[in-house]
Amino acid sequence: MKILVINCGSSSLKYQLYNMDNGDVMAKGLVERIGIDGSNLQHTPAGKDKIVFEQPLPDHSAAIKLVMDKLTDADCGVISDLSEINGVGHRVVHGSKYFSKSCIVTEEVKDAIRKCFDLGPLHNPANLMGIEACEKLMPGTPQITVFDTAFHQTMPEKAYMYAIPYEYYEKYDIRRYGFHGTSHKYITSRAIEMLGGKKDSKIITCHLGNGSSIAAVKDGKVIDTTMGLTPLEGLVMGTRCGDIDPAIVLYLMNKENLSTQDVDTIMNKKSGVLGVSGVSSDFRDVESAMNEGNKRAKLALDMFHYKVAKYIGEYFVALGGANAIVFTAGLGENSKTSRLAICEYLKCLGVEIDAEKNGIRGEEIDIASADSKIRVLVIPTNEELMIAQDTKELLDK
Amino acid sequence: MKILVINCGSSSLKYQLYNMDNGDVMAKGLVERIGIDGSNLQHTPAGKDKIVFEQPLPDHSAAIKLVMDKLTDADCGVISDLSEINGVGHRVVHGSKYFSKSCIVTEEVKDAIRKCFDLGPLHNPANLMGIEACEKLMPGTPQITVFDTAFHQTMPEKAYMYAIPYEYYEKYDIRRYGFHGTSHKYITSRAIEMLGGKKDSKIITCHLGNGSSIAAVKDGKVIDTTMGLTPLEGLVMGTRCGDIDPAIVLYLMNKENLSTQDVDTIMNKKSGVLGVSGVSSDFRDVESAMNEGNKRAKLALDMFHYKVAKYIGEYFVALGGANAIVFTAGLGENSKTSRLAICEYLKCLGVEIDAEKNGIRGEEIDIASADSKIRVLVIPTNEELMIAQDTKELLDK
Repeated sequence: MKILVINCGSSSLKYQLYNMDNGDVMAKGLVERIGIDGSNLQHTPAGKDKIVFEQPLPDHSAAIKLVMDKLTDADCGVISDLSEINGVGHRVVHGSKYFSKSCIVTEEVKDAIRKCFDLGPLHNPANLMGIEACEKLMPGTPQITVFDTAFHQTMPEKAYMYAIPYEYYEKYDIRRYGFHGTSHKYITSRAIEMLGGKKDSKIITCHLGNGSSIAAVKDGKVIDTTMGLTPLEGLVMGTRCGDIDPAIVLYLMNKENLSTQDVDTIMNKKSGVLGVSGVSSDFRDVESAMNEGNKRAKLALDMFHYKVAKYIGEYFVALGGANAIVFTAGLGENSKTSRLAICEYLKCLGVEIDAEKNGIRGEEIDIASADSKIRVLVIPTNEELMIAQDTKELLDK
Repeated sequence: MKILVINCGSSSLKYQLYNMDNGDVMAKGLVERIGIDGSNLQHTPAGKDKIVFEQPLPDHSAAIKLVMDKLTDADCGVISDLSEINGVGHRVVHGSKYFSKSCIVTEEVKDAIRKCFDLGPLHNPANLMGIEACEKLMPGTPQITVFDTAFHQTMPEKAYMYAIPYEYYEKYDIRRYGFHGTSHKYITSRAIEMLGGKKDSKIITCHLGNGSSIAAVKDGKVIDTTMGLTPLEGLVMGTRCGDIDPAIVLYLMNKENLSTQDVDTIMNKKSGVLGVSGVSSDFRDVESAMNEGNKRAKLALDMFHYKVAKYIGEYFVALGGANAIVFTAGLGENSKTSRLAICEYLKCLGVEIDAEKNGIRGEEIDIASADSKIRVLVIPTNEELMIAQDTKELLDK
């Protein structure tokens, strides 16, 4: 069984073609600058070099058409005909209250994705364009949607409701949704396996990258998560502020005479470790600056580590204890200094790190010392594989 | 030594006259509706009944003049002359970065209080009016200011900075300040005494009332607190939303076409347990409604308890453990059901409650069972006494 995984952004598109019989990635690639001057496709067949194709791509249909052409191309292709693809798995960012799991695309599903445009204005329209382009190019091939929010839909009311007037929940579905669900789901299932398939597992999953979120997962089900109505809430991120006094939004608007769009941009694009350090949104740059004595860079990283540790404390209480803390994504997988700085705070919960194991990179590993009361796992995430697996599961039914 | 404690609101004024030689309250009272039709003074000399005086009071000067008249009145007074008052302690809400402790009023102090008008627009102007009215009526008598924010000024940078562009901190002093400092300070000092004057104490102080905040206090110094730039951030309160995704502020403004003032009112006056339950901002009413089967009332209380418990988990990690959790203020002192619901979550930290002790009311008590790993103290707060003590201390110097 061959499954294509597609992740459409507003002007970009990422894809991977999986052979699910052996789990191999047959080809993968990226289209950039869709609808903008300088459109290009970077296509990498398995085991071969990346090939770049530059040509005008006015919309997502044209981009997907080009991807399909290259996948079936005599030179750089990996299949002879599109009919070999058994299904396409699409990442959709916001599933609102409508989707608690992945599903096969129908007209009703597309209507519901449209209803979520308001909540995911930057992503959902692009996600739907990708689905519709594939439907046209591959009529009859099942399209599957996998939602970033779905894994978090098991949260209880006390965790997903905000303490604002109830009418806004009824009128606009304003509540906590959570994001990175596909990643949290993947590392949860790997972690449960690493713990020996433990029943009643209490796991705190930390997806730490440029965007970051933490989830509290009880017995495989999310009971709380740091991101909220949008991916702005929670941790200090690369360019996002995370939690702040909501009165600051109004204070800034009044002081600087800003529009809602202006403040949105400030909070989403100019804040986080970039805003505090003034150096970069890339944690590696900020760490380098800190090592060269930059005090604001040190402050930014201190704030990030402190906030992660505090949320782990929250979720330890929310779960009534924890069997494992899991680190994943760019920073979670690769920064031993960040993992160490965070876990230093967690000694009071019984967390002990094995410094040598913490130095190992690129594999699934338990970096806690033998006598740690909580396992500390590093698990490289794989959202594309998770999407492919969800797609296969729905096709197998 | 006799000390008068004054707490001016925008249209109200509370006072207590202390005899610091024996700690007795000689008289106390309340002026309401200053500058509004129906102004009145409710004056209660110690051991006597409350007397109500209704008369026009155009401003805070007139209100304070009336209070002074009654304190020295032949019938309802408790002193024969104002010169018997050795000093006046004034509550000031926002001390910004200027005040880390109480101080004697000078022209510089008044200038600094004026500089904080922006940060405390509802309270600081009234607080200053109270100070200036006393200066006129009692020339030569020392006036002392006690700030709600001062006790929190020991927070480290990583706790008080927000991850927004650094320039807003430099330009507008946007940072976490914290409030209820006088109450947190009072119960901290009482708690340390109850713990046997323990060195290196780690205490989590929970001021839970209509407005609520929690502080993490290490060795008598605050290292973190839930309220922020304003008293809106943090816990779910009577009418305040506490923490929400900051994007919700913009989402609501756009959807409902609201001004910054409108959203401010919604978040400060119409949210919290009132907004969620739709019943009341008074926790007792909400609890009654819940007991009668009102599901939204139950949700509001569940959210409140869950949030308090999660913050205690945060601060357990921030402090690297905890010797004691302290409950105070209206709800913290009086609601055994709320204390029990919160502590139920904390079993994973080793908290065990003695149900019988938890039922005792109105006194300083340790309600943890003998084998609890963390002491759980209920300490009635006394902000007025704390202000009087700070005032005395400055006069004694």
